[in-house]
Amino acid sequence: MQSRYFTITDYPQGTPQRELFELHSTELPEVTDGEVRIRNTWLSVDPYMRGRMSGVKTYVDPFKLNEPLEGAAIGEVIESRDSRFKVGDKVRHMAGWRDIAQLKADILEPLPEIEVPEEAYLGVLGMPGMTAWTGLNHIARIREGDNVLVSAASGAVGSLAVQLAKARGGTVVGIAGAPEKLAWLESIGITAVSYRGKDAQQLSADLKEACPTGFDVYYENVGGTCLEAALDNLRVGARIAVCGLIADYNAEKPSSAPGNLAMILIRRARMQGFIIFDHWTEYPHFLEEVGPLVAKGEIDYEETVEEGLERTPDAFLKLFDGANKGKMLVRL
Amino acid sequence: MQSRYFTITDYPQGTPQRELFELHSTELPEVTDGEVRIRNTWLSVDPYMRGRMSGVKTYVDPFKLNEPLEGAAIGEVIESRDSRFKVGDKVRHMAGWRDIAQLKADILEPLPEIEVPEEAYLGVLGMPGMTAWTGLNHIARIREGDNVLVSAASGAVGSLAVQLAKARGGTVVGIAGAPEKLAWLESIGITAVSYRGKDAQQLSADLKEACPTGFDVYYENVGGTCLEAALDNLRVGARIAVCGLIADYNAEKPSSAPGNLAMILIRRARMQGFIIFDHWTEYPHFLEEVGPLVAKGEIDYEETVEEGLERTPDAFLKLFDGANKGKMLVRL
Repeated sequence: MQSRYFTITDYPQGTPQRELFELHSTELPEVTDGEVRIRNTWLSVDPYMRGRMSGVKTYVDPFKLNEPLEGAAIGEVIESRDSRFKVGDKVRHMAGWRDIAQLKADILEPLPEIEVPEEAYLGVLGMPGMTAWTGLNHIARIREGDNVLVSAASGAVGSLAVQLAKARGGTVVGIAGAPEKLAWLESIGITAVSYRGKDAQQLSADLKEACPTGFDVYYENVGGTCLEAALDNLRVGARIAVCGLIADYNAEKPSSAPGNLAMILIRRARMQGFIIFDHWTEYPHFLEEVGPLVAKGEIDYEETVEEGLERTPDAFLKLFDGANKGKMLVRL
Repeated sequence: MQSRYFTITDYPQGTPQRELFELHSTELPEVTDGEVRIRNTWLSVDPYMRGRMSGVKTYVDPFKLNEPLEGAAIGEVIESRDSRFKVGDKVRHMAGWRDIAQLKADILEPLPEIEVPEEAYLGVLGMPGMTAWTGLNHIARIREGDNVLVSAASGAVGSLAVQLAKARGGTVVGIAGAPEKLAWLESIGITAVSYRGKDAQQLSADLKEACPTGFDVYYENVGGTCLEAALDNLRVGARIAVCGLIADYNAEKPSSAPGNLAMILIRRARMQGFIIFDHWTEYPHFLEEVGPLVAKGEIDYEETVEEGLERTPDAFLKLFDGANKGKMLVRL
C-alpha cells in the first residue's frame, strides 16, 4: 500500500513559501508484530510547527529535511498486528501530514468515548483545548472574578480560553482582527477589540476602554503589539501565560520587543512560558472537565477545514495570515 | 531647632541634574505628645527613588515637589514624648534626606539587637538585603544546586544575592563593570563577567562560557543588554526575579527591549517582578536567617560612603553611573 506524505526541502527564513513543501509517495513495508496501519481521516496544522521548521532545537526537535513531516492526526485502524487495536478503531497519533500511517501501537491513543465529532480531539478536546485550559488554570492560575485578556481570541486556543475564562465571572476581552471574528466573540458574550491598523498605544487605549480596571490575567498567543498593549493594562499581581508568540514565528530578525517591560516590575506581574507537552499528564483532568461541556454543546468551537491531503501546506500557511477561525484542520 | 532637608524643584526627564536638588532649612515646631525628634546618623540613597521623581504613581507615590524628600535613615532619639522611645535610642525610619527628623513614634522601628554596625540596617540587613533574600527565596524559589546569575552583582542587593546563592551550591555568576568590582566578586568565589563594551551577543557568549549548562535563576537588577544576554542562557524551567531595571530608570524613551523574549516560551521560564514593600512581613524571618551570618562576619558586605548631608544628591546620582560598590550611604 502507498503512503503519500509531505516533506520540506529546506529550513525557511521568514514566511515559508508554498514551494517549500513537497508531496511524495512511498510503498509501505508489511505490517510487523506490534505495528498498526492507519488511514488518517483528519490532520491538524498548528502554529508551533513553524518552530520545527527552523532547523534548530527549541523545545521539540526540528523536522528532518526530506522526511515525512509530523503533527497530530486522527485515523482509523485498517490493519493491526497488536492485540490492543483492531480494524475500525479510531486513534489519535502524531504521524500527520500523510494519508496512511504505519506505527508502533505503543504511540497510539485510542479516542476517548465522549459523544463529539472525532475531529474535536484535534481541537477543542485536543492539544489546543488542553493548552487553553492549562494556561488559564495551571500557569495563570485564574481565580473567580479575574478580568482576563486573550490575544488571538478566536483561534483554536484562544476561543476556548475566552469561554473558560468567562465562566469564572470576570470581564473577558478578546483581541482579534477580522470583523467576523470580532462578531463571533461578541456573539458569545466576549468584549472584542480589533488590533487591525493600530499601534501599541492605540490598542492599549482600546483595551483600557474595554476594561478600565485592568487585567488580572493575560493569555498570550501573539506577542508584539498585543503584548505591549497588554503590559500597559495589567493590574497589580497580574499573571501572563505565554502560550505562543505567533507574531514572531516568521520574523527574520528578532521582533521589536515591548519597550514597556518595566510594567512587569511596576505591576509585580508574573510572565510564564509553557509548553503543553510538559503538562500532558493532566489531560484526563482536562477531558473530565471540558469534555462534557463540549458534548452538551455549551462550548462554541469553530473549525476551518481544508479538503484533501494536497491542501495541507495551504492550511498550515493560512495560520500566519489569520485566515482561520478556530481550529484549522485538513479532512482527508 | 533647625532641620535641614533636600527637595526637588521639578520632575526630571532623563538623568537628573545636580541642580534639581535644593537644600532648605526650617525651624521645627515643639515636639508634641506621641512625637519623637531624631538626629539622623546615616541616610540611604537607592535606585528606586528615581521612580518617585517621575511625577507619576508607579508602585509608590511620587515625591512632592518642594517638600522634603524621603528615604530610609537611621538616627538617634534626641527628644521623645512617647513612652516607647527614650533619648539615645537608635531607630530606623523613612524620613531621610535631612539631618533632624520629627515623627510620630508609630512609624519608627527600633533597631534590632544584633551585634553589627548600625548602618548595616540600611544595607545588608535593611531593605537591600531583604530584597536580595526575598527575590531568591520567594520569587525565584531557589533550590539546592541551582545555577544563578545576578546582574549588578556588586551592588547593595546583588552582593548579598550572590553570597546567598552561592551557599546553595550551584554555579553563581555575577555581572559587573569596574575591574575592582569584578575582583571583589572573584575574591568571594563568584565567577565575574564584565558587561563593559559588550553588546548583548558578546555578553551572552561570555555568560555561556562562564556557565555552559545555563542558569536556573536570574536575579535581575539591570535590564537592557543584561536581560537579553541572560534570556539566551536560561535552562528549561528557569525563574527570573525582576528586582530592578536600573538601565531604564533615566531613559527618556522606552528602552530597546530584548528581542529574544521568546526564550520565555522556549525555556518555559517564569519572569516575575516584585516590590519589597509587599513582602515586609517576612522581615523577621530574613533577619533571623541572615542577621547571624552578618554578625559572624560570614557575609562580605561593602559600603560606599559619602560624608555630610550636602553630599546626599551626589551619592544618589552616583548610583546611576555605577560609582558605588555595595550599599551607597551618606554619613552625617
